[in-house]
Amino acid sequence: MWFSSVMQDDPVPGDTVRKEKPMQYPSTICGKTYEEFYNAIERFHGWKAPGVVIGGFMVDLAQSHLPPDVEADAIVETVHCLPDAVQLFTPCTYGNGWMKVIDWDKFALTLYDKKTLEGVRVWLDIEKSRRFPDIYNWYMRLAPKGDLPLDLLLKSIEEAGRDMLSCAPVRVVRYHGKLRKGEIGVCAQCGEPYPTLQGDRCLACQGKGYYEMFT
Amino acid sequence: MWFSSVMQDDPVPGDTVRKEKPMQYPSTICGKTYEEFYNAIERFHGWKAPGVVIGGFMVDLAQSHLPPDVEADAIVETVHCLPDAVQLFTPCTYGNGWMKVIDWDKFALTLYDKKTLEGVRVWLDIEKSRRFPDIYNWYMRLAPKGDLPLDLLLKSIEEAGRDMLSCAPVRVVRYHGKLRKGEIGVCAQCGEPYPTLQGDRCLACQGKGYYEMFT
Repeated sequence: MWFSSVMQDDPVPGDTVRKEKPMQYPSTICGKTYEEFYNAIERFHGWKAPGVVIGGFMVDLAQSHLPPDVEADAIVETVHCLPDAVQLFTPCTYGNGWMKVIDWDKFALTLYDKKTLEGVRVWLDIEKSRRFPDIYNWYMRLAPKGDLPLDLLLKSIEEAGRDMLSCAPVRVVRYHGKLRKGEIGVCAQCGEPYPTLQGDRCLACQGKGYYEMFT
Repeated sequence: MWFSSVMQDDPVPGDTVRKEKPMQYPSTICGKTYEEFYNAIERFHGWKAPGVVIGGFMVDLAQSHLPPDVEADAIVETVHCLPDAVQLFTPCTYGNGWMKVIDWDKFALTLYDKKTLEGVRVWLDIEKSRRFPDIYNWYMRLAPKGDLPLDLLLKSIEEAGRDMLSCAPVRVVRYHGKLRKGEIGVCAQCGEPYPTLQGDRCLACQGKGYYEMFT
């Protein structure tokens, strides 16, 4: 198992090398300078959302534990912010199917080798984040909105870097692989192609649609 | 209702202006040259997937029916390819919550004014696509994979442009608005924050996880 030698996530008692925090302020993140990193986030996500910035550090940490050149798929455990960090800083997107999102509202992600299904799960470690009260209060929603200026929070996130995160090797046992497309037919009511598995009409024509037509 | 004057999607009998197809070969798509458009797709999605290219034409058509400067949210009716066209060519992403994806496997999307909930739904019109057999056969999965070179299919898609699409004004009645985050607590088993609504432990600790730890 290729992780065991590199998974040194938690401080080792008496480990003085760790105390020097050699990795805390890397000059690049996900292979980008900080300026490129923030610009990419702002352009894609619309603003420098703290969740996407933390997500960038998470992707960076996960990638550092994967063997070089591995083809990694992603699973993200929240719909909020984190999927954009994965889409920006890995080849995985929602539409190419390499990133799956499960709506658990946990701030965690897994990158894993799509062949062996072995990979690394990274999460915002709420215990570790207590050392950075702005991050802790923001994530636990203890600070009223507006009380914490964005710049201050981003500074705390930069300072924390990997020290707010934990990671562990995992084997993915669900949600991996391609979503198969079923048999398609043409809906007898609206005339649009749909998976016949949904019934004799498409879901919209079964009354489950999200829209009303103007008549 | 602001669409009615511009929704001239279907050919009007005797409408000679339509027959000249003045919009069929616009020099830009989603405000980009074709080169920029294809580069953006390749960089984000990994390759020039026909579904994302068609999606670009769909976004372009939808945007042409929205009033300028409207803040539009998106709903996409398939997880395949189309979400990436929306994420590339609108401000909506999965992670910023302005794009929702429903797994219906229908090749359709809606852009709508997030204030009035009025918008336009665009879909790949399978009847219209019969005029472009490569597109029809590809979408209906009638051509064995590998039989249709990508370049040929992309050429057909460019030729078809808006002529393979239909659109209609709609009012969105579900899936709009922000996904609310519930109360969060700390899972007694794994120590990670999770929505307490899920029970007294997080879903992973309830055995619904997608990963196994290495022990």
